[in-house]
Amino acid sequence: MGRIDRSSFPGSERIPTVESIDRITSEPVYARLSSPGFHTAAMDGFAVEASNTFGAATDSPLSFSVGQNAWAVNTGRPIPEGTNSVIMIEHVNFLDDDSFEIEKAVVPWQNVRRVGEDFVQSEMILASRHRITPYDIGALLCGGVTSVSVGRKPKILLIPTGSELVTASSLENCIPKYGDTIEFNSHLLSGLISKAGGIAVTSEIVRDNYDEIRQALITGIESDYDMVVVNAGSSAGTEDYTAAVISELGEILVHGVAMMPGKPTILGVVAGKPVMGSPGYPVSAVFSFEIFGLPVIAEMLGVPGSARPTMAACSARKISSKLGREEFFRVKLGKVGERIVAAPLPRGAGSITTLTKADGVIRIPSNTEGIEQGAEVQVELLSQPQQIENTLVIIGSHDLTIDCLADELVEHGIYVSSSHVGSLGGLLALKNDTAHIATSHLLDEESGIYNWSYVRKFLSEVPVEIFQGVMREQGFMVKKGNPKGIKDFNDLARDDVTFVNRQKGAGTRVLLDYYLKKHGIDASKIKGYNMEEYTHTSVAVAVLSGVANVGMGVLAAARALGLDFIPVATEQYDFIVPRKNLDDWKVINLLDILKSKRYKERISALGGYGVERSGERLVEPK
Amino acid sequence: MGRIDRSSFPGSERIPTVESIDRITSEPVYARLSSPGFHTAAMDGFAVEASNTFGAATDSPLSFSVGQNAWAVNTGRPIPEGTNSVIMIEHVNFLDDDSFEIEKAVVPWQNVRRVGEDFVQSEMILASRHRITPYDIGALLCGGVTSVSVGRKPKILLIPTGSELVTASSLENCIPKYGDTIEFNSHLLSGLISKAGGIAVTSEIVRDNYDEIRQALITGIESDYDMVVVNAGSSAGTEDYTAAVISELGEILVHGVAMMPGKPTILGVVAGKPVMGSPGYPVSAVFSFEIFGLPVIAEMLGVPGSARPTMAACSARKISSKLGREEFFRVKLGKVGERIVAAPLPRGAGSITTLTKADGVIRIPSNTEGIEQGAEVQVELLSQPQQIENTLVIIGSHDLTIDCLADELVEHGIYVSSSHVGSLGGLLALKNDTAHIATSHLLDEESGIYNWSYVRKFLSEVPVEIFQGVMREQGFMVKKGNPKGIKDFNDLARDDVTFVNRQKGAGTRVLLDYYLKKHGIDASKIKGYNMEEYTHTSVAVAVLSGVANVGMGVLAAARALGLDFIPVATEQYDFIVPRKNLDDWKVINLLDILKSKRYKERISALGGYGVERSGERLVEPK
Repeated sequence: MGRIDRSSFPGSERIPTVESIDRITSEPVYARLSSPGFHTAAMDGFAVEASNTFGAATDSPLSFSVGQNAWAVNTGRPIPEGTNSVIMIEHVNFLDDDSFEIEKAVVPWQNVRRVGEDFVQSEMILASRHRITPYDIGALLCGGVTSVSVGRKPKILLIPTGSELVTASSLENCIPKYGDTIEFNSHLLSGLISKAGGIAVTSEIVRDNYDEIRQALITGIESDYDMVVVNAGSSAGTEDYTAAVISELGEILVHGVAMMPGKPTILGVVAGKPVMGSPGYPVSAVFSFEIFGLPVIAEMLGVPGSARPTMAACSARKISSKLGREEFFRVKLGKVGERIVAAPLPRGAGSITTLTKADGVIRIPSNTEGIEQGAEVQVELLSQPQQIENTLVIIGSHDLTIDCLADELVEHGIYVSSSHVGSLGGLLALKNDTAHIATSHLLDEESGIYNWSYVRKFLSEVPVEIFQGVMREQGFMVKKGNPKGIKDFNDLARDDVTFVNRQKGAGTRVLLDYYLKKHGIDASKIKGYNMEEYTHTSVAVAVLSGVANVGMGVLAAARALGLDFIPVATEQYDFIVPRKNLDDWKVINLLDILKSKRYKERISALGGYGVERSGERLVEPK
Repeated sequence: MGRIDRSSFPGSERIPTVESIDRITSEPVYARLSSPGFHTAAMDGFAVEASNTFGAATDSPLSFSVGQNAWAVNTGRPIPEGTNSVIMIEHVNFLDDDSFEIEKAVVPWQNVRRVGEDFVQSEMILASRHRITPYDIGALLCGGVTSVSVGRKPKILLIPTGSELVTASSLENCIPKYGDTIEFNSHLLSGLISKAGGIAVTSEIVRDNYDEIRQALITGIESDYDMVVVNAGSSAGTEDYTAAVISELGEILVHGVAMMPGKPTILGVVAGKPVMGSPGYPVSAVFSFEIFGLPVIAEMLGVPGSARPTMAACSARKISSKLGREEFFRVKLGKVGERIVAAPLPRGAGSITTLTKADGVIRIPSNTEGIEQGAEVQVELLSQPQQIENTLVIIGSHDLTIDCLADELVEHGIYVSSSHVGSLGGLLALKNDTAHIATSHLLDEESGIYNWSYVRKFLSEVPVEIFQGVMREQGFMVKKGNPKGIKDFNDLARDDVTFVNRQKGAGTRVLLDYYLKKHGIDASKIKGYNMEEYTHTSVAVAVLSGVANVGMGVLAAARALGLDFIPVATEQYDFIVPRKNLDDWKVINLLDILKSKRYKERISALGGYGVERSGERLVEPK
């Protein structure tokens, strides 16, 4: 007890070569046959003994008789015994059906592939611990090797635990009951396991009950699984039984690791088999498994654990991190100018989309308090470098049309990295050269003109052009039926009304302030004025879930969540492009799409948008 | 006719999300549910209304009653209505079972994941044309999306043609008849197709017969295949029918492309479906399909064709290339000092192992005659950058023990790139800093000492250490039974004996010359003295196949091919390591293995090797 028993690791099996793609060789593989297996014509023509051709020249051609001292051969066929070269068909002048002349000699073995030219029998074709490619399968068959010994796929049992969990498949045509949570961690881990060359089997969902978890683990250990993963209950809550169960049945080697996400990880051993208690938050479950689970699979398969490729990038923002633990940040990457820029995604371990959106991961070591904006960091890549090269970085104000734009651009091989930091944040990104384009809808209170005055103020040293994105309706989002009877700005200051605001620097907040001023309303009278959200949808969610009674945002966001919408203003949402980026093919494509009929129709269908002038370059007002 | 009919491309299908790994979305995917779907406790503890906690401090704790103004919650569970924050269990001081005190307030929404914090229903989770990852499957299930619309896998028919072909499976326990060739191109192409997301089906082997090929193509076109590939017969030989068949049934768009390998490629269309005539040499078939076939599959799936990642490298040798055609060179890569060095592999399109051994591919454009030694080139990567980083570059004399060494090193995560250019070539590689280690067995005719005098002469500016590899028997390799009765060096000069030599600079050739001089034999009297091979095994093959009656080489090579062996000398085969590389972990590992019992036993088993002093650092003679 207490020791992982490597002798019970899955070992190897012999499988047909044609089914061995991506499997790992468990021993060196030797050629059974030489390639080629005979002296082979490398050209279509006539096989001859080379010395018979010596002396042939334009003014003294030599003649050959087919079947006597020359034999017709096609590429890939053996040359007859007694011959050692091939005259190319293009180089013979036929005298009649059975004889021809040549005007140039061939040297011995010309146009012939000799026996064993590629490899000879008994030569090593593949070393051990090698991942078999399609090319390798060709080489193995070519060498007469029709079966290979490869590492058996490790079989891993995943035990999802949690009384609140329901299977994804049970929700096919309905929505979960209040409080039910969809169990998807097992599918996440299954995917990682199968990509790593293992086989994942998921048990029934087990409730938060000591005996049930214990029984599930015993069943797993006693079956032919090579490893068992209990997810989750690996922390120290009242219903976290994983550690206690592993302790009872075997031994805990590690409980809790100095990393984030992934801290509540348990590594243990039961009856010689590795057992893992894996955290419940999906991002934590992934990092924990990638760091501790995948290397076990790699060891079982006999492959050196494969590190992700890395790329140097500069951080688009300051990132702070706690001393004493290694912290993993998911980042979006894009190439702006000559630099790769890494924009950190939200760090919440519960947000699975921070993994789906990420192009890479930054590790901040435990002895560091974080990194400064612009600092160079090494990024472990999740995306292909080519994809990063083709990524358009858009930073600024959030609008739902950006998602549609991204979906259109992918058809042109362009990927979009969009960060929602508000209009002003977008302008600052251009100033720092960390974005190709900023999105902005900042209203100048004096002139009533959008964006230009802000650009002059914040981007005085960055020459830009402004292109109209959309005109969009802004309004109040309220619960269906408008229970609080919100009609206009004056209602926001009512005692029985809670508002939810956007963050400072957001265009929507500037718009709100403009109207509050116009109507002489004191912002400090508005309950919730300081409650900040970063996107239209999160404002809508705050209203939907009762956190607030009313928020300001666009029609599309209200519609998406089934909220009522009281329009209060039409505003201009623009794309701000530094002149130096105007030649960038990705920017050119984006501007083309903005003007396209298809895109305009798609946006119009969302409701609340005016697209007449979309993509139009705006003339700077005097 | 003559046009590829894109409307008949495979289109899309709806499949369960849990089976969608690596598939390509055919439309944007929107969340059906928000995540989280309710206000969720992010910590284990007690849910409260935050304002009830305001004012709590160490000297003025506030007390709560469980079930009245505080409710126990576990991570992941909903917080009760009327609460908006969670006090961590670690921060409460229990007064009794039903009440506790706190000394610190919580702010609204502290330790709570709000509805829709990650995403809200109707939000786009994945754009179209996106390859689904395990992370994505998690996100989709989390959003209640249990099925997704993805591109149908294109179904491609491969028709192997050639009267000389036999299936690999027919050879399971026997060897091919003389002249039979194993059909493995279909397995190569199948592998590429399945990796690219298509489905390959291979027909029976079709003989070189116009009508049979025609019938096979008609059957393919009339079935539900999306594309048909005829391999081979795409050239202009007497039995090359592919072009004629495609012409009769449809239209040829391209016949012959300016690339090497891959020139005899046919692109055509029959009944609106793409048809490809693909070359017979395996490397040509691969390049042709990668350049012309894979983009069709990518278009059918709706993905932007994915380029391979690239890496800058410097060429270890001069590479010449013909003007007027794009040429593709397979290369081995390794990091020597700070440079990535690319060593070109043999260019023969029939040698499938040039693909299995390659770490990357260099393209030399049609308007270039080649590249100089040391020139920077862009390499399209076939191996992981990490693997290249961990590759030990060994250049010089060939010995079978290098393969065993490579197989041992892979266990330590080290890969070996070995080029066989003879002992002298190895020393020159060290001089040019294109290798970590050279292998050499150069005998000084004066002193009878190996390697040191050559090192002094050719590496005067590169301080090195020499480590003994093996002592090995050199001898004459002759056909079984020694039909020519070869006994000693004098027999090589016999009129009825043809010799096969090693290339200039090879240690074996130096050894031969030493003995010829010693015995007073005139090299010009030896028939075949100028016939050069580059490795022991290729010399053995030349003898086996009757090209020569005798050659000189090591016992292991003779044994592997069932030749008789007449020992004539024992020589010293060494590893030469520049001092600056002695600290390299890869070199350290290699030297350790040389000294290890396991390795020595493995080499001894090959026969003809002495390993007593293997791995020992040799002292420079005065």
